[in-house]
Amino acid sequence: MTAVVPYPALLATVTDVFVGRGVPPDRAATAAEALCHGDLTGVTSHGLVNLTRLYLPLLESGRADPAADMVVTADLGASVHADARRALGLWSAAQAVDLAAARAARHGIGMVSLRGATHIGCAGFHAARAVPHGMVGLVTSNCGGQRIAPPPGGSRPVLGTNPLALACPAGDRHPFVLDMSTTVVPTGRVRAAAREGRDIPPGWLAAADGTPVTDPTAFDRGEARLLWLGGSPETGAHKGFGLGLLVEVLSALVSGAALGPASEGDADDDIGVLALAVAPDLLRPGFAADADRLFGALLDCPPVDGGEPVSYPGRPEAERARWRRAHGVPLPDELYEELRGLAPDLRAAG
Amino acid sequence: MTAVVPYPALLATVTDVFVGRGVPPDRAATAAEALCHGDLTGVTSHGLVNLTRLYLPLLESGRADPAADMVVTADLGASVHADARRALGLWSAAQAVDLAAARAARHGIGMVSLRGATHIGCAGFHAARAVPHGMVGLVTSNCGGQRIAPPPGGSRPVLGTNPLALACPAGDRHPFVLDMSTTVVPTGRVRAAAREGRDIPPGWLAAADGTPVTDPTAFDRGEARLLWLGGSPETGAHKGFGLGLLVEVLSALVSGAALGPASEGDADDDIGVLALAVAPDLLRPGFAADADRLFGALLDCPPVDGGEPVSYPGRPEAERARWRRAHGVPLPDELYEELRGLAPDLRAAG
Repeated sequence: MTAVVPYPALLATVTDVFVGRGVPPDRAATAAEALCHGDLTGVTSHGLVNLTRLYLPLLESGRADPAADMVVTADLGASVHADARRALGLWSAAQAVDLAAARAARHGIGMVSLRGATHIGCAGFHAARAVPHGMVGLVTSNCGGQRIAPPPGGSRPVLGTNPLALACPAGDRHPFVLDMSTTVVPTGRVRAAAREGRDIPPGWLAAADGTPVTDPTAFDRGEARLLWLGGSPETGAHKGFGLGLLVEVLSALVSGAALGPASEGDADDDIGVLALAVAPDLLRPGFAADADRLFGALLDCPPVDGGEPVSYPGRPEAERARWRRAHGVPLPDELYEELRGLAPDLRAAG
Repeated sequence: MTAVVPYPALLATVTDVFVGRGVPPDRAATAAEALCHGDLTGVTSHGLVNLTRLYLPLLESGRADPAADMVVTADLGASVHADARRALGLWSAAQAVDLAAARAARHGIGMVSLRGATHIGCAGFHAARAVPHGMVGLVTSNCGGQRIAPPPGGSRPVLGTNPLALACPAGDRHPFVLDMSTTVVPTGRVRAAAREGRDIPPGWLAAADGTPVTDPTAFDRGEARLLWLGGSPETGAHKGFGLGLLVEVLSALVSGAALGPASEGDADDDIGVLALAVAPDLLRPGFAADADRLFGALLDCPPVDGGEPVSYPGRPEAERARWRRAHGVPLPDELYEELRGLAPDLRAAG
């Protein structure tokens, strides 16, 4: 069963919860928007389910600092190095993209390399903040010292699910927003299946000898490893692993954050984030019209016989968000009751 | 059967071939190095096999201009927009990375957005030019108007195999060089299997209804489509397609080059290239030592029972290149004879 909660009420509730933990109101509002983005777009593995499981424990244990200011430690104009000092990543990643966009508006490209971050939520939410500026936004984040997936042929996990996101204007259409873990799926989708008692498709998990595992509970029992995008060596596992390393390099090696393979602990602390913005309008005329042509032409691609219309990443999520902004956000009863435990005034619609 | 040719002889031969077509000697030397890189590292799909099939026809037909200078059309310091004006992409992509690195040395990040390029060969060769500067290099290239793979659920190809490469120092070790098409494999590997009469593994090609195709000749007969990294929708095809689009956006939409889905013709002309360099030493101390720790820790990961030692992308290729620089580059007889047809003085070793 699900409860449907009006989006503004949900946003206000989560903002208040963060403010109640000492997060300044404007930052709490950004963090709430970032967190609700998961449920609004249907990426529920990165939504409100993480409030009591991830973000509040981070604040309560002191692993995240609600009031910390991001400190700029090097500033070269087009590029900035900063320490997030354990501020909520839900806010500091947004801040990093905003700063990168401000620098791109002068230099054509802007980069913010961030260390000391905490979990940023949906990377695509942050990357998309470049789009209203007519810019392309790129966000990568490692998982600090957290180790989830082993390298191809390796027996121990070395890297996290290392997400990357790119957002780009698409004319009057919903923007293109690619938001992906570099593993086949993020751990959240495996755990959601485990909670719901569903089997998962072959290709997400494998035993040490490579045998596909379809029981999602095997993951947290340590009996199955999460596979890299590409699956097996024949179909490109080295590319998925390579992309995970690309994210590790851009996010954490450049910034000096914790490195998955070379950290003492295995907590997702001292996360590294790269925020990049590119301002094509400063480089050449006609970008907006070309973006319109590109994504329009993709949508015009005829589907295979009897199939759904062709789409692009970000579009189905934005359609879903539009509907839910107007009609409310569906939440599983268990999650709804969890939120009511934090904010008893929260009410489902109708 | 293979002929083994000393690397310096191979390089000199290819340089002379390009010079004979009107390419200035310094540029011809860079282009030859880029092309021989494929055979030196074992990425033969992007090596000398393309000399008579791709690069010489480009020069002979006028689709590539041997003597064209790259023209800078916008310069904002950290970012540069340039038109390659149909110069050999084997040279102009290297030039773009060198320029990006020069800008990164002042601004922490440097970007060159290039339109009007021709086929760049191995993207990783170019990205790796940032490494001797202690920098991270990123190169993406679209395929101009060429359309090879359809979007998930689509019936017509819209994008090329859109490669991306990232290179990073790894201490005293061989650098990390990820060099990948965003499809499961590049077309060159399918065609190599077809030439050699070998079946390909399931997961590279599929019929319109999704059935795996293991006959590589089905691809050029139009009876099978190349799959995106991730394979099926359940295992992340939308991510591979999304990465293909990411490359299209960064390379061609930013630069104003030809767009796969929205070009009149379908030739790989007016290719777009992005070259990005990041200079971590300008942002924070300790980068080189951390890079050493990161890649050292990866190599220390114990292999699965009875398996090969764990490695990282770029390392096996560099090991192979080191051996071949010293002992010669093996070329299939047919390819060796092809080269002797262009340069009768070329001799195999021993």
